Amino acid sequence: MNPRTLADIPTPALIIDVAAMERNIQRMAEFFAEGPCKLRPHFKAHKTPEIARRQLAAGSWVGLTCATVAEAEIVADFCDDILIANQVIGEGKCARVAELTRRVDIKIAVDSVFGLEQIAAAAQKAGTSIGVLVEINIGFRSGVGPGEPALALARRAADLAGVELRGLMGYEGVAQPIEERDKREAAARSALERLLSTVPVLREAGLPCDIVSAGGTGTHDISGRLPGVTEIQAGSYVLMDTAYAKLDIPFEKAFSVLGTVVSRPSATSVTADCGHKSCTQDHGNPEVRDIEGASVLFLADEHALITVPQDCPLKPGDRVQLWPSHIDPTINLHDVFYALEGDKVIGIWPIVARGYAEQRMEWSKE
Amino acid sequence: MNPRTLADIPTPALIIDVAAMERNIQRMAEFFAEGPCKLRPHFKAHKTPEIARRQLAAGSWVGLTCATVAEAEIVADFCDDILIANQVIGEGKCARVAELTRRVDIKIAVDSVFGLEQIAAAAQKAGTSIGVLVEINIGFRSGVGPGEPALALARRAADLAGVELRGLMGYEGVAQPIEERDKREAAARSALERLLSTVPVLREAGLPCDIVSAGGTGTHDISGRLPGVTEIQAGSYVLMDTAYAKLDIPFEKAFSVLGTVVSRPSATSVTADCGHKSCTQDHGNPEVRDIEGASVLFLADEHALITVPQDCPLKPGDRVQLWPSHIDPTINLHDVFYALEGDKVIGIWPIVARGYAEQRMEWSKE
Repeated sequence: MNPRTLADIPTPALIIDVAAMERNIQRMAEFFAEGPCKLRPHFKAHKTPEIARRQLAAGSWVGLTCATVAEAEIVADFCDDILIANQVIGEGKCARVAELTRRVDIKIAVDSVFGLEQIAAAAQKAGTSIGVLVEINIGFRSGVGPGEPALALARRAADLAGVELRGLMGYEGVAQPIEERDKREAAARSALERLLSTVPVLREAGLPCDIVSAGGTGTHDISGRLPGVTEIQAGSYVLMDTAYAKLDIPFEKAFSVLGTVVSRPSATSVTADCGHKSCTQDHGNPEVRDIEGASVLFLADEHALITVPQDCPLKPGDRVQLWPSHIDPTINLHDVFYALEGDKVIGIWPIVARGYAEQRMEWSKE
Repeated sequence: MNPRTLADIPTPALIIDVAAMERNIQRMAEFFAEGPCKLRPHFKAHKTPEIARRQLAAGSWVGLTCATVAEAEIVADFCDDILIANQVIGEGKCARVAELTRRVDIKIAVDSVFGLEQIAAAAQKAGTSIGVLVEINIGFRSGVGPGEPALALARRAADLAGVELRGLMGYEGVAQPIEERDKREAAARSALERLLSTVPVLREAGLPCDIVSAGGTGTHDISGRLPGVTEIQAGSYVLMDTAYAKLDIPFEKAFSVLGTVVSRPSATSVTADCGHKSCTQDHGNPEVRDIEGASVLFLADEHALITVPQDCPLKPGDRVQLWPSHIDPTINLHDVFYALEGDKVIGIWPIVARGYAEQRMEWSKE
């Protein structure tokens, strides 16, 4: 790699403050060093092996979390305990999960008989067995009801060749963004009650329930201390975003979008080359870093329109940085991170799992 | 390519109804067949050579429009007249534009002395000359004021070695999304008056002004009939989106996001595997295609939460399609299109210009 400084980076680009990222990683590892509950960092937040390796080096983990089969295929190169914290639906994808059992301890979430039977069939065909967690609907997006419905699916899993029941999962997504701690705690406890109340139901039925997986960055220090939760799937903490920065959690914003001013169309505005294509706005407009009084007016496809004070000296050719509002989809737009120590580029880290590997496989076959 | 049908496509994925796309292309080409004003289709909408080639085959064009240098480097393989309809700022990017003059007639927009001098310096260094259009600020994101400020920059361009003044550009972006035709027309005419009033100012000063470039899909049949406008930079018409579909323009929605239902967490909701990572929401949530009473409640990173009527039979494993609200950034999320005739896949088309080529060049150097 050629040595570079911040000034040499072609824009738009994602840059990481490596020191801030390392502090975030250490703080989270320290929090989970003690309790019986451990960390399972979510790979989907950054999609970048160089970052995941640093999370693993810090300890306090039981494995990594992935959102997709394609992510798990990448993570299997450096971690041997993986949870795909989603339903895996489709014969092709189930076959790929079965293949992964030859390399790593892999588990997926299930919330339907259809999904359970499909993954079991793939495992049987491959002569292997796949771990499953029954996902409980605790108010966000997927899952079966707690208690009886969960027990019925768990029984089916226990009876079926090709799958191994490992426990339960739930995601208290509704609680994650709540800014006031007492309200966030109440929401997390209420949601997780649905998950935790199902644990004894399984145990009383003689079914295994070794893993109870939940949580995220916003609730890591709430859900991670609830008796019965065995692991927390936090991801955003490592680099953060402006949405999570509003919470009282001890993590720093550690990445930003670097842009170049291309126009100053008026005394109170500048246009930079970082729009929708380099920064999402699904959690609100990004914030402008380190420029007093500057704010993003709107994003166009290739441009950020930024309102500035009249005496702001920004002019074409100058650099700006935006703090993204939502880490995961913003990172998904880029192919690499530029890793910085101060102004020095110490690495260019491929965001290997961005997009959909299935599509690139199709393309390369042509 | 292996023959496939819609049912075989791994999800999430972008699919194109090729017949609808061809109808859109033909309709736009027919509109511009007659007038003195011609079409300069905008490559940034789809970023896909297979589609651009079809647009060129339909005729009525003067060249293609690009948003970035990286797009122009791809387009130069099959089109010899390119306008980069943005400021190009940065020595590296300017040097790449200079390099492109060896292969094609290339023009860029300028709106500052800094930008003009930087591109001229790159051209001089390469022993070439680069075409420039002075961008007039007509209310959207960039540009100098009409009249005197534009004349001053045009004079500087005419005097400077390494650049060749070709004309003017303006983008009436504020008018594009206005649903009522009379209001859209009034907004477009008002904005373009600032552009068109500057044409005689240049001519009276003895400066060339052969190109007057403007427009987009929403105003193609308004701005494209205004005397003095020589070309229209429309892009979205070829595949459309739900925002442009609200306008009274004769184009059909021709692409959608294909997803798979992964969960039915309640009688009135399903979860599909197509979220922020496969469909943007910067112009609003996508719409659900062909399912009566279904609507997107929200997008999560990997999931669309869809509200459905209780009697809707959707279940895990079934397919759904979403109509995106904004074509450009949604397509930018994917690596390929699956091109369909009916249910048959007739091609897998690489979205070659997605993301930032600069980042992939860095990566491959490692």
